[in-house]
Amino acid sequence: MAQPSKFVFTREEAKSPGDNPIKISFLIPLIRKRFSTYKVVALGFGSSGRVFVGVNVEFPGLPLHHSIHAEQFVVANLALNSDNKLNYLAVSPPEAPCGHCRQFLQEIREAPKMKIILSDENGDNLSIASLESLLPRRLSPDSQLPKDVPRLLEPRYNNLTLSGPDSHVPYRYPDLKPAGLVAANRSYAPYSKCPSGVALVDRQGIVYKGWYMESVAYNPSLGPVQAALVDYMVRGGGGDRGFADIVRAVLVEKKDAEVRQEQTARMLLETIAPNCEFKVFHCCENPKEN
Amino acid sequence: MAQPSKFVFTREEAKSPGDNPIKISFLIPLIRKRFSTYKVVALGFGSSGRVFVGVNVEFPGLPLHHSIHAEQFVVANLALNSDNKLNYLAVSPPEAPCGHCRQFLQEIREAPKMKIILSDENGDNLSIASLESLLPRRLSPDSQLPKDVPRLLEPRYNNLTLSGPDSHVPYRYPDLKPAGLVAANRSYAPYSKCPSGVALVDRQGIVYKGWYMESVAYNPSLGPVQAALVDYMVRGGGGDRGFADIVRAVLVEKKDAEVRQEQTARMLLETIAPNCEFKVFHCCENPKEN
Ligand SMILES: [Zn+2]
Ligand SMILES: [Zn+2]
Repeated sequence: MAQPSKFVFTREEAKSPGDNPIKISFLIPLIRKRFSTYKVVALGFGSSGRVFVGVNVEFPGLPLHHSIHAEQFVVANLALNSDNKLNYLAVSPPEAPCGHCRQFLQEIREAPKMKIILSDENGDNLSIASLESLLPRRLSPDSQLPKDVPRLLEPRYNNLTLSGPDSHVPYRYPDLKPAGLVAANRSYAPYSKCPSGVALVDRQGIVYKGWYMESVAYNPSLGPVQAALVDYMVRGGGGDRGFADIVRAVLVEKKDAEVRQEQTARMLLETIAPNCEFKVFHCCENPKEN
Repeated sequence: MAQPSKFVFTREEAKSPGDNPIKISFLIPLIRKRFSTYKVVALGFGSSGRVFVGVNVEFPGLPLHHSIHAEQFVVANLALNSDNKLNYLAVSPPEAPCGHCRQFLQEIREAPKMKIILSDENGDNLSIASLESLLPRRLSPDSQLPKDVPRLLEPRYNNLTLSGPDSHVPYRYPDLKPAGLVAANRSYAPYSKCPSGVALVDRQGIVYKGWYMESVAYNPSLGPVQAALVDYMVRGGGGDRGFADIVRAVLVEKKDAEVRQEQTARMLLETIAPNCEFKVFHCCENPKEN
């Protein structure tokens, strides 16, 4: 992640927000120019002072539940860049996040206090609403997770190891299994306990990864392929050629998991990345480290 | 739908709610008994005076976005029974609908005015909140649909006809294509304009159907197989044997549709209904009737 990404504004570019209502207006012309082909753009202000961009991603030929909302893109962008707090969120065209996203955002620690920046088309007339005020009487992770369970964006390690006879056969260079395992180990799946991770490689040999992120309300969960595609786009892929330059993909998940991504991942990749060879490797929890 | 369903309370059983806060407490013991195996139960009070029950339906082995929330089940139950207004909605265990459902419910005409009944565990201490108060600054269908476009639950006819060379070959009795087409013609897909319908038949030869219902926020849309499974359950299927008694299924959708259900429908049915033979038939808009 050394090279600059058009999906991440550095602390300097974003002029660290501080505690006052954020002046996002100066970012608007930049964003409009950079992301003119997208319907929805979201901005997430992380605790590091960086500002993370998200866009809506749709997949023609597939049902709409595969879509990535701009707000979910922002969350995945923060996760990939190890920023563990989303303090402020703004969505353009100026509107509040949809109900689906308001629910997904609940997985972040102290979500009700998250500030949603509302503005007009020019980025002026800022007002701020708490996420709590936009989703009162929320369905909360707190009802199912003890306090000490790491929440979405917080560091976690699932203690998974590759299993099965084929797990030590490096089948091609670069071997994507280790990256897939790293991703699965960061996956947030506290409800199903079925973490999973995806690693992709493009024609240039660059490896991308993403992991499954679950919602207490189930349906708003973000799949591991979707998260890996966010990594791909954040790091420069996905322009005019779409996902045609992705040549191989690996999914790492538990065998016979109650929530199994394999078929869905294959279907999604077959539809959007016709040149991609897809393999699945299984993992299990490592007993040694307990 | 002649025989009584445990998922529908008649007007008499429900003692027509009227305009005052609804006394749902007398229904609670009945519901608890009838639906003890489900985590979440929802009750929808339709304009006909009937009360429609919904339960959560999960599909082990598949990603969570395939799940049917109890509130979506209620909406599908109303649609299948041609009740075009959902006046009051209650969810038990006592809580408000999740963000995903609050968004899906927006597709119903005048959704902000819908009343959500909140109660304690015994069904006492009723209070009522408008859906508007639970999803302020909503992402609204009104931003994309003219007023005269029928909304979810309102009567609609998509003017579709079967296309392709095989459409007149009745391949087995009962021929499911007509039922699939009827379903597709009732599908609510004003955003993608890709309506679809599913018909199922069980070992006894009973035909069930359901249709795709779309959300302006995309992801909360309800797939046509899911809707058909609601019909199956409402009419007595889906007990201990799950979906093993479903023997054939037909999907009717537009060829090369931007939102295509085929692969997802096949994957879902292969996973949950191992004895089901699945076929797809294509349809197109009928030019004659314009
Ligand atoms: Zn959204
Ligand atoms: Zn829900």
